[in-house]
Amino acid sequence: MVPHLVPRWPVCLFQWRAACTLGACVPQSAWAGASRTPGPGSPRGAVGTSPLVRRGGSSSSSRAPEVMLTRERYPVQRLPFSVVSEEDLAAFERITPGRVVTDPEELEASNVDWLRTVRGCSKVLLKPRTTEEVSHILRYCHERNLAVNPQGGNTGMVGGSVPVFDEIILSTALMNQVISFHGVSGILVCQAGCILEELSRYVEERDFIMPLDLGAKGSCHIGGNVATNAGGLRFLRYGSLHGTVLGLEVVLADGTVLNCLTSLRKDNTGYDLKQLFIGSEGTLGVITAVSILCPPKPRAVNVAFLGCPGFAEVLQTFSTCKGMLGEILSAFEFMDAECMQLVGHHLGLISPVQESPFYVLIETSGSRAGHDAEKLSSFLEHVLDFGLVTDGTLATDQRRVKMLWALRERITEALSRDGCVYKYDISLPVERLYDLVSDLRARLGPKAKHVVGYGHLGDGNLHLNVTAEAFSASLLGALEPYVYEWTAGQRGSVSAEHGLGFKKKDVLSYSKPPAALQLMQQLKALLDPKGILNPYKTLPARA
Amino acid sequence: MVPHLVPRWPVCLFQWRAACTLGACVPQSAWAGASRTPGPGSPRGAVGTSPLVRRGGSSSSSRAPEVMLTRERYPVQRLPFSVVSEEDLAAFERITPGRVVTDPEELEASNVDWLRTVRGCSKVLLKPRTTEEVSHILRYCHERNLAVNPQGGNTGMVGGSVPVFDEIILSTALMNQVISFHGVSGILVCQAGCILEELSRYVEERDFIMPLDLGAKGSCHIGGNVATNAGGLRFLRYGSLHGTVLGLEVVLADGTVLNCLTSLRKDNTGYDLKQLFIGSEGTLGVITAVSILCPPKPRAVNVAFLGCPGFAEVLQTFSTCKGMLGEILSAFEFMDAECMQLVGHHLGLISPVQESPFYVLIETSGSRAGHDAEKLSSFLEHVLDFGLVTDGTLATDQRRVKMLWALRERITEALSRDGCVYKYDISLPVERLYDLVSDLRARLGPKAKHVVGYGHLGDGNLHLNVTAEAFSASLLGALEPYVYEWTAGQRGSVSAEHGLGFKKKDVLSYSKPPAALQLMQQLKALLDPKGILNPYKTLPARA
Repeated sequence: MVPHLVPRWPVCLFQWRAACTLGACVPQSAWAGASRTPGPGSPRGAVGTSPLVRRGGSSSSSRAPEVMLTRERYPVQRLPFSVVSEEDLAAFERITPGRVVTDPEELEASNVDWLRTVRGCSKVLLKPRTTEEVSHILRYCHERNLAVNPQGGNTGMVGGSVPVFDEIILSTALMNQVISFHGVSGILVCQAGCILEELSRYVEERDFIMPLDLGAKGSCHIGGNVATNAGGLRFLRYGSLHGTVLGLEVVLADGTVLNCLTSLRKDNTGYDLKQLFIGSEGTLGVITAVSILCPPKPRAVNVAFLGCPGFAEVLQTFSTCKGMLGEILSAFEFMDAECMQLVGHHLGLISPVQESPFYVLIETSGSRAGHDAEKLSSFLEHVLDFGLVTDGTLATDQRRVKMLWALRERITEALSRDGCVYKYDISLPVERLYDLVSDLRARLGPKAKHVVGYGHLGDGNLHLNVTAEAFSASLLGALEPYVYEWTAGQRGSVSAEHGLGFKKKDVLSYSKPPAALQLMQQLKALLDPKGILNPYKTLPARA
Repeated sequence: MVPHLVPRWPVCLFQWRAACTLGACVPQSAWAGASRTPGPGSPRGAVGTSPLVRRGGSSSSSRAPEVMLTRERYPVQRLPFSVVSEEDLAAFERITPGRVVTDPEELEASNVDWLRTVRGCSKVLLKPRTTEEVSHILRYCHERNLAVNPQGGNTGMVGGSVPVFDEIILSTALMNQVISFHGVSGILVCQAGCILEELSRYVEERDFIMPLDLGAKGSCHIGGNVATNAGGLRFLRYGSLHGTVLGLEVVLADGTVLNCLTSLRKDNTGYDLKQLFIGSEGTLGVITAVSILCPPKPRAVNVAFLGCPGFAEVLQTFSTCKGMLGEILSAFEFMDAECMQLVGHHLGLISPVQESPFYVLIETSGSRAGHDAEKLSSFLEHVLDFGLVTDGTLATDQRRVKMLWALRERITEALSRDGCVYKYDISLPVERLYDLVSDLRARLGPKAKHVVGYGHLGDGNLHLNVTAEAFSASLLGALEPYVYEWTAGQRGSVSAEHGLGFKKKDVLSYSKPPAALQLMQQLKALLDPKGILNPYKTLPARA
């Protein structure tokens, strides 16, 4: 962690470096293919090594080793739901004719999560096309006491999107129609199964962008994004889905359709019910349609990749950049030196800047390229003059912007090639963000291969990852509950953006007091009295 | 409504006009004093004429005519709550020693709303200082079945903040301490009774701004803002409180303290309970503390005031301005010609631009004055060239910015001087926003003195006001349910930002379907089974 100081160089060099350094350092071939590397599962947060697969979808490669059944790996008891009968299948065939999947091979991809850490044994997957079909399915399941696992793109990180036992999988895959788009207000209304990347393309053709962007955009469904309150890369600028989602249509556990699908920016008529379902991970209702506010498409996007001599300088760079870049700042990401070593070692990516203890990626999005460039230049000059940044490079065209982003986005992939990975997604006050990484590194010593920290610094969101050659109960014991207790000590969140799903439901109490937990249980009981919706997820089992 | 076209004049004239026209047109004296003119109440939305009083606070001027008791004016039955006894007063004195108000004169200001349209007859007001005191009060009231009316600055528009009968008034006035402010993230944590304007001053001294701004800022409490999901003037830029409020501390009906007062931008651990209380008007819990994200203070603020030849051009100006001003656009307000006539006639304000069928106020806030000015110039040149705007003026210094804003902000005051006012606060798809005004004008004919439309066009929020010499049941009959049905026909909201409170609770069903209404009633029953919190408000009485 000794700062690597290099002589300061003038801002005008940025353009030159952008033009020649990056093109050489990152082989074009390395940018293609999957954005994530799921591997065979290990208990709780641990993920192992495996060949590249596309996130979501095709995770059932025949060469991949079989994933252990969740019910065998974890201490979980099946609740007394009914078991799907031949009569049930016949009823489903009447509701969704030709769209009742029972073929085991086809079911496999929906029974296993993309990280290949959890595996259910559902015998049936339904593909409704309309809200009415979802309503019929849930009314039927509610009457029959059949458990249901709503599933979007199956790209979640916490095992929330696949069954734990034999829950019926209710897929939104065929609910993929845009309902309306308003060219003045930028309000998009669409079915829940629309894929985020396709929606992005749709609104970009109309000069808007989606208010969220994720690594999993090629597979994830907007309904799943809303159900998990996805954060991602545009959060710093456009904020939470609690602010940008304007309306939802939701089918409740008993089949009641709750139509709050308004296309209004303001509506103070009664309680804002849609908020209940944002981030409730399909446990309170099934989202069938979404109304969302899209910001105008920025005309200029720039990315700066900078080296910082210490974490204090990363923080000062953040403060400076908030002031000097102001309204055009759209992302502020950071990664530590070990992250860069890993993307170098496993993916062959070479740092575009001098070796540094920390790296920062800053993105600006604005309506006038010249103005944005001037703001960025002044900012870069300032941070260099004050020694907050020791080296940097700038990208303005789309290809190079993507290359710089890949250094940050492909860390997950590099980590999973490094061995067994223990993953934590933590919110902390920014000034303490990296202390957890340093403390953990000291605590673990040679037990861990790597302890790395990176993430959305602008949002106070740390992705803390620990790698080892293989799964070790003693390493896990050194990690947990230490990481959760450390986070709770700072009033942080033990799940910043990934949610709780199946794998993290038992750590909820580190971030929420008993009174909150009790109210959540009461809400679940009110909205889903039989508990058929996504059981074993989000909330800990009641004592 | 014939467009008043004047020869186009070059953009460079803007500066000159800003320097000389405005200073002359708006007498300095007219800018002082109150921001609103409450008057004697008339049934439902109607407001009459009265002398100026400061919004909230001192509405109990001895010269003002007495406001009729709500229980006498409206068909409402007292629910079977207990009546406050001497023993209860003694108990309250033990919980909040020296802060139990029973003096009728002191109580009057808290029994009557600032619009002077509703009046309760509470015999006691409590001024807790801490969350623990609020918890003790509610636990006691819950056990004794005593109804409670939480009250902030008493600046609401729908009679939600004063008792209907003899509810105990629980004032947040002494809960006015800032708990913490984080200079890097801009996260403010404070007690619920902090006055918005004081918080604004506090954070501005630290180079941030509050994410909301309201005409009532000098009186309203942040807890009340959150409880009513206040919209206001910065909504277009910084969005809803559902996005900017990061945490809440709430005392539930039975005295349980629900501490979700985190200072984190991201937290996906379980259901986002705080959302339930944002906009629930004190009917589900009493907000005692707020954590809120403050944006950095803009270094440059500009206001353009423009005349448009028609509503189609207003809409095109909005689209153009979203594209060309992009990230610096912070407000887009509109008013019609009749509004300008009223502020001229009643307040002596003279339009700074040529007479036009419509006027638009555009505010920009940015981090670099030169860039913002360039963007504004290009935009103004464009809208003039394309005939979207026929005249305009620009203000860059704070005094003139305030003057231009006053033309828009003082419409309410001018209206209340015009006679009896029927007020509606509607959300509609922007392209239909003004049709309701035109339709209503045609429908009412000479029955109305004025039918005017203005509001936050950028948010699709229309303030529709109708004035008459005096209250008339026949005029009211022509207005309602016509306005609500028209709005429902467009899937609009019958209360965009004012909430429902006491006066609008019965029109909820125009904007929400029966399934939503039922779920709201269930949530109320879950969180406040005895119904002691702000009874007779927000939800219609159960059949």
